[in-house]
Parts: sequence; C-alpha cells; structure tokens
Amino acid sequence: MLNFRSAAGLIALASILSLPAAAQRQARTPTPNDTLKSPEVLPDRQVTFRIYAPKASEVAITGDWITHGRAKAGPLEKADDGVWSITLGPFVPDFYSYSFSVDGVRTLDPKNAWVKPGVTSLSNMFEVPGDDAAYEETRPVPHGEVRIVWYQSSTLDTMRSMHVYTPPGYESGNAKYPVFYLLHGAGDDDSGWSTIGRAGFILDNLLAEKKAKPMIVVMPNGSMPPSDKGPAFQAGRFADELLKNVIPYVEKNYRVIANRDNRAIAGLSMGGAQTLRVLPSNLDKFAYAGVWSMGVGRESTAGFEQDNAAFLDNASKTNKELKVFWLAVGENDALVGESAKNLDQLLTAKGIQHEFHVTEGGHTWINWRHYLHDYAQLLFR
Amino acid sequence: MLNFRSAAGLIALASILSLPAAAQRQARTPTPNDTLKSPEVLPDRQVTFRIYAPKASEVAITGDWITHGRAKAGPLEKADDGVWSITLGPFVPDFYSYSFSVDGVRTLDPKNAWVKPGVTSLSNMFEVPGDDAAYEETRPVPHGEVRIVWYQSSTLDTMRSMHVYTPPGYESGNAKYPVFYLLHGAGDDDSGWSTIGRAGFILDNLLAEKKAKPMIVVMPNGSMPPSDKGPAFQAGRFADELLKNVIPYVEKNYRVIANRDNRAIAGLSMGGAQTLRVLPSNLDKFAYAGVWSMGVGRESTAGFEQDNAAFLDNASKTNKELKVFWLAVGENDALVGESAKNLDQLLTAKGIQHEFHVTEGGHTWINWRHYLHDYAQLLFR
Repeated sequence: MLNFRSAAGLIALASILSLPAAAQRQARTPTPNDTLKSPEVLPDRQVTFRIYAPKASEVAITGDWITHGRAKAGPLEKADDGVWSITLGPFVPDFYSYSFSVDGVRTLDPKNAWVKPGVTSLSNMFEVPGDDAAYEETRPVPHGEVRIVWYQSSTLDTMRSMHVYTPPGYESGNAKYPVFYLLHGAGDDDSGWSTIGRAGFILDNLLAEKKAKPMIVVMPNGSMPPSDKGPAFQAGRFADELLKNVIPYVEKNYRVIANRDNRAIAGLSMGGAQTLRVLPSNLDKFAYAGVWSMGVGRESTAGFEQDNAAFLDNASKTNKELKVFWLAVGENDALVGESAKNLDQLLTAKGIQHEFHVTEGGHTWINWRHYLHDYAQLLFR
Repeated sequence: MLNFRSAAGLIALASILSLPAAAQRQARTPTPNDTLKSPEVLPDRQVTFRIYAPKASEVAITGDWITHGRAKAGPLEKADDGVWSITLGPFVPDFYSYSFSVDGVRTLDPKNAWVKPGVTSLSNMFEVPGDDAAYEETRPVPHGEVRIVWYQSSTLDTMRSMHVYTPPGYESGNAKYPVFYLLHGAGDDDSGWSTIGRAGFILDNLLAEKKAKPMIVVMPNGSMPPSDKGPAFQAGRFADELLKNVIPYVEKNYRVIANRDNRAIAGLSMGGAQTLRVLPSNLDKFAYAGVWSMGVGRESTAGFEQDNAAFLDNASKTNKELKVFWLAVGENDALVGESAKNLDQLLTAKGIQHEFHVTEGGHTWINWRHYLHDYAQLLFR
C-alpha cells in the first residue's frame, strides 16, 4: 500500500528550515511513546498493536476482523514501560478497522492517523497487503476522481454533500456514462464508501482489467437529519432526497446517460433498506439493484408485501425490467442474517428473479467491498 | 453550520426496517455515556466538553484556540457518574480543533466523529457559528468541487494523492482558469486544507461575493516519504514533485491558463518553507507567492542569501515579476515568529517588495484560514 498517511511520513517541522533557537530548546524527557509504532504489520501478516497508557488498568481492542470471524482478540498486555500490546493474526490481506478501549473509554490509536470518519463510526484503518487485497489497493493504474460535492437540498432545506466517482478519462473526454447510486450504512456518511469502502480504487482496478463498464458512482449522504417521526418517515425522506435532489443534480451537472437501463442502485445495511424502499416503486428509473446485509424481518413481511404489491405480484413485468437483482449477506451476520434469508424466500415465493449470495463473515466492510467488486461487474451489460 | 457529521444525525440501524428478534434482544445496562453530548455549543458561545472515563485519574483538553490565545483550559472535573467535563469560552465564532488527554493518553472525543485527519495531526473539530465565521461556513451559495486525485509520481516512484478545488461553473463550462498551488504544514497531508482548512468553502464564499477571481486551487501532499538524507533533500524532493509531477498533471488534465501570470503559490509552516524553496528559482513560473507562519532563522540567513542570490540581489527584476509577495505570522507564534520577522527584515534590506502582516494569535489554522481568505482576493488581478 503505497501511500504515506502514517506517522512515518512526517518531516519534523523544526528541521525544514532553520528555526529560532527558542523552538529548538523545547526539549523534554523522552517516553516510550515517542518511538512507539502501531499498528506494525509483520512479514508473516501478523499485526502488533501498541498503546502507551502507563496508568490504565485494562486495554482492549475491537476490530472488524473479529465480527468477520477472521481472528480473535483478548485484552492487551502491559509491559513495565507502560506500553500495552497484542499481536494478532496472521491476517488475510485486506483493509481493516479497529479502535482501542482504555479503561472503558473508546480511544483511537494515537499513533495511527489513518482514520475512517463517519457519523458515529469513527475508527482507525490499516492494510495487510497481499494478493487477496489487490482488487482494492491503490495500484499503478489509471485512477478516476472522487469529488466532494455540496448541493442545496430542497427536501431538507440545507446544504448536503455527496461523493461522486468519475472514471479515468472522464475529465479529458466527452463520453456520457451510466450512473450507479451506492448507499452506505447507519452511523456513516457519504465519505464512507471512499475511505474504508475503497470504492474508487475497486472501480479503478476493475476498469484497468476491463472487468466493468466505465461508470459514474454517486455516493450520497444517507443519514437524515434527526427526527422524532420514526424510521418510515426517515426512509421516505431519503427516497425524496435521492429522487428529487441527488439524481437531478447529477443528471444536470455530469455527462450521464439518463435512462433506466443506465441507472443502478445498491446499498449496505441501512442503504440496503433504502434500496428496498426506493426500488419497487421506481422500476421506471432503475434496471439494476443490490441489497447487501439487509432484508425484511419475518414480522414485517406482511407489511412489506402490502406496500410493494405491484412489484411483488407482477413477477413477469418486474423480471423483465430488473436486469440484475443481487442480494448478499454474511453467514455470521447476527444482525440481519435471518431477515436477508426471509427476503430471499419471499422473492422466490413470488417468482422474482434474483441472486442471493450467502458469503463468509459478518456485518462488515470486509464483505461490502467484495460485494461492490462482484456487483459492479454485472452492471450496464 | 448545517451538516450532520454529528452523532445526532444517526438513524439507529435496528429501526430502519424490522430486524430479527435476536438483534432486538441485545439489551445491556445503560451508562451515562449513552446519552452524553460532546462538544455542546451553548447559546452564549461557551462550549462544554465531556468524556466518560470513570477509572481515569486525570483528564485534560488541548485545542488550537489555546495556542491562538483565545481561551484557556484547565483540567476537566469528574462527576460522581464518571463523566469528566469542562465549559470554556465564550468562543469567537470559528472552527476549532481539539483532543483529550486521559491519564496521559491522547484520546479523540468518542462522541464527536467530526475529525481532521492528517499524517500525525489527527484531532476533533467543532464549529461555533456566527458572523465571524461566515466567511468559512458551508453557506447556500454555489459550491465548487473538491476532487481527490491519484497520480503516478515519477520522482517518488509511487502513487500520490492531491486535492483539487474546481470553482462553481467549471464542470458545465468551457472557460480556462488560473491555478493556485496551496501547501499544508508538517504532520498534515493533502486533505488538511479541505477539512480544518475549509479552503473550498472560503473560495465559494469569496466567489459568491465577487471578492476573488474564479480559480482552481491545487492542494498537493507535501509530506515526503521518510528519508535519512535530511531536510534539504526532502525540500528538494517536494520541489521536484511539484514542478515535475503535480503542475504537469494539473495542466494536462484541467482547463488551466498555463503561464506565470496565472500561477500562484502559498503555504503555511512547512508549506511556507517549501514555497521559499520553490519560488526564488522559479519566478518564470509564479507571479504570486505567500509565506505564512514561516521564515528564515537568523543563523541560516547567510545560507539563504547565498542560495537565492539571483532572487534577492536583483530587486528590480524580482519586483517586476512578483506581483504579490504576501507574508504573515501570528504575534504569539513562538515557533517561527522570530524567523518570520527576520525574513521580513532581510527582504526589506534587499529591496524586495512584499507585505508582512503580524496578526493576532499563534501557529494555528485559525490564522491560516484568514490568511487564505485575505490572500486569495489579491490573486490574478
């Protein structure tokens, strides 16, 4: 992974040019923290995590590889110099996220400035490089741009942001492109798919290998402003935001092919729920859909059937219009595993063509990056 | 500030669609942390910071308003429920950054996911809204795009990223634009000017008020890969990277006016040092320069004079070519204040026309955003 978002990339300010003697005199007693490295990815793909906390009585680590079932983690052990550490793995080559808990306080790794922001899901990132991660790495291939775009939302009466991936060649060319609307999960925002989600890099690598059609990927902010009016209201607000603001903005400002055969949608978790909300009543707008790590609970199946009768009860029409309907969930997803299976069974019972993939792992970005990689290859064919 | 990067924007996953009963059963004992809010900006512009750390014996806060001299901060006080808190201010309306220290361990605010990433300068952000901050706020005006761009660096033999601001109207128009190369400080990366630096928003607001010429702003990554060869080598690498990779990439891929009258450069701290390295031998490429919170130490003045004799000893030529040379430093900048004054004196002694602004405050983004706001108005006139 050839970037330099780590502490090792720092050039000390004082050494750039000669600085005043006063600044250079600011010496202090060194601590083990000064030279501490964390995380350290070892040649055998084990990873050592360290944190300097001499007064702490308990330090633990949480990470998405644990939810995924790839490795476990006990408490860190304290050395005499106040440094707590643990070595885990070996890890499958991939990108991972983690945070510490120091005496019960959630603490990012002070030695690792590579972070994944989010509404509530802030955590550190690291990469274990290797062949398994090649599909999502920053490789020497042509790269598209990820653009941070602010627009005035008429439905929410505020400025909102979205991230927009334009493929290599967009800037210098004149071609028009299909558009894939890619939705994040709860606790996240429109940056998630471009940090831990690696969406731009996954598309860059697919395009370099000619495994996907060139496309624009639009990643809106799916987290609505707070409301007491309940989840159905919030899901409706997102649908309005997407259909009345995001899509019109994109189709006005980018070179897109604006018809249903050239629009796709997919989302993970909350974004999967939003996809299930938008899709059935908007088959005139989307020919491709993905629902990842989300489903419909058994207790709300009747309501879902009732709300979406036109979609579910006209299988021949739905099947003709929906070119790809791609569902996936991790086999260890305690949160939505049963709901996802229930949705698969409902669609099967209704005769709605779809793919349902039960993969390894849990409710994690480890899976969602792979789902994007697999799904994007099927679009706009 | 109308965005929703705070915890308040979260829609609970479980409430989106009906989830399996198993997930809903995952109850646990509530703690004060569950409903804790931090930071809380009060109506009188005081701000309360809180962190749940029942086992800690000492919690402190550091923030850039302290360095700037706007408010002080003692240790937080612990309540019986394990929540530490402190109320500071009132604050001048502005954007601020901070972090906690919990028993000596640097800890981001677990309740505030709005963060400023960086190579080593990770911290939380918050805004105190108000008229003084209007110039940098996300306002309902036309917005440009901030693009994350990856390119192959021939000088560093790796993929590198830069952030590129394109002004409102760039995407839909055909005009060519001048380019401003804007450099960050040590410990930071190319994202800094677009997070805590607010560069895109500052430009958007200036353009909406017709106080600046439409321009592209290129924010490269100034942090070089680690090297044992010393600071002069690293500064030379950055100059190579800028001149041989960044500028050619920009001029190939964007609609720019590629001549000296339409190129500007400026940088803060390390970026100011990089500007001082690049500018004197490249007056054929830049007609505007800014050096912010950086200078030349007295002990290295002779070397600086020797290295830049052609620039310093031909004042009439330099003054004819350099349309704006804009230096600024905070009056409380202990790190580089004396160096900046020394540079001002050297330039004055040599007859090199320049502006030197000694502002309030210290070595902080509070100043750098204002410097950008003031300097950008002078460019390309």
